[in-house]
Amino acid sequence: MVSVIILGSGNVAQHLIRAFSNADNVAVVQAYARHPEKLHHLLPEDKITDNINALAQADVYIISVSDNAIADVAAALPFKDRLVVHTSGSTGIDVLGTANRNGVFYPLQTFSSAKAVHFKEVPLCLETVRAEDMPALKSLAHSVSEKVYHITGAQRQALHVAAVFSCNFVNHLYGIGATVCEENNIPFNILKPLIQETAAKITTLSPTEAQTGPAVRKDTQTIQRHLDFIKDERLKEIYTLLTQSIQQTHE
Amino acid sequence: MVSVIILGSGNVAQHLIRAFSNADNVAVVQAYARHPEKLHHLLPEDKITDNINALAQADVYIISVSDNAIADVAAALPFKDRLVVHTSGSTGIDVLGTANRNGVFYPLQTFSSAKAVHFKEVPLCLETVRAEDMPALKSLAHSVSEKVYHITGAQRQALHVAAVFSCNFVNHLYGIGATVCEENNIPFNILKPLIQETAAKITTLSPTEAQTGPAVRKDTQTIQRHLDFIKDERLKEIYTLLTQSIQQTHE
Repeated sequence: MVSVIILGSGNVAQHLIRAFSNADNVAVVQAYARHPEKLHHLLPEDKITDNINALAQADVYIISVSDNAIADVAAALPFKDRLVVHTSGSTGIDVLGTANRNGVFYPLQTFSSAKAVHFKEVPLCLETVRAEDMPALKSLAHSVSEKVYHITGAQRQALHVAAVFSCNFVNHLYGIGATVCEENNIPFNILKPLIQETAAKITTLSPTEAQTGPAVRKDTQTIQRHLDFIKDERLKEIYTLLTQSIQQTHE
Repeated sequence: MVSVIILGSGNVAQHLIRAFSNADNVAVVQAYARHPEKLHHLLPEDKITDNINALAQADVYIISVSDNAIADVAAALPFKDRLVVHTSGSTGIDVLGTANRNGVFYPLQTFSSAKAVHFKEVPLCLETVRAEDMPALKSLAHSVSEKVYHITGAQRQALHVAAVFSCNFVNHLYGIGATVCEENNIPFNILKPLIQETAAKITTLSPTEAQTGPAVRKDTQTIQRHLDFIKDERLKEIYTLLTQSIQQTHE
């Protein structure tokens, strides 16, 4: 049995509380929130505190607050030498200070309050300063997810960059597709099966194997017709740069 | 009952033959292929011809060959005034010539020979030169798919551009994510749940609502850290351009 205390009440904190509460080998001892009412649907009132000096004893303390607030919460902890982790993909482990034994417990998924998540499928990226703290963190992670990875701070930085390309930028390209449809009175829905299939394909093929389209076919006629069609200079620039990038990658 | 003849033996032609053969109200009268053996697993031998002058009578002739070959196949047809359509997203209807009544039957999906497709979910984009030819084409389309759209030639061009952004370019960004992972000894698998969730999100949210990440948050510190991290000049350029584009879109 691993005992855990969650500090925070945002989307990630709430998804963690829910997942740990449903896990067999985890005891959610307490949660800390500046606005305890945000957690009333998840925990009994006597398990929620807004007083950081009233924190109970636990094996692991998980700080799941906005990136800018992590350092302040860590600095306010009224104890030392305990295992304290944050859940941020883009924040170094060092912001947790030196009073406690530090780690990272980063769930690599996009969480919305409105949408349930199959936590068993969420990759959890773990890091600890001291190797002897890894087993407890790993045990905690395995109790809620089947996808547990030991990821160094430098790797986590790389992973965050990769996620920006493969998710944030991808969503922006969906948006450009939607705009082109809208401007031509085409329902965006017509593109969605192709979008889903494009994402599904890379579960069995590498992106290199899955690449299709005029760029990789070096179909210069179609590329030129597309560039003639696109009036917006910014879109022209994106089209040209990504076409070149595909062709350089597949040379 | 609509009778149909398929000309071609590639991926799209094969998926069409399979879908029409399974449909209640369609008779696949014949297929034409320069290499008939490519279709032996789909049709009895006496229904396959490699002689374009031996084509039988049918309500609709579907030319499903590579874009560059459509005009030649259409010009070689030994009849006139019949309904002849092609299946290309990026080819004008006019390449079909003037001897026959022309149309387009464009399935907007990425077809691989190795992967089955739920044809009922494939959007079919229809165009005909003469309005009176649309009902027959629509009836044929509805017999295999629930998603049938009347799309003009200009709209089809726009749709093809939108698909390049939302699918071909998206796959390239998956590839960049995979490369960044690989260079840092991170399994690309770790990103896949997030990639799937990003695609799933836009089935219920608009891409504008679904946008997350440092660009839309205007998190200049994280953006700068990412640009410092990226060494490859081409990736830096893509990162910068797409970050600017997100910020302009969400101004």
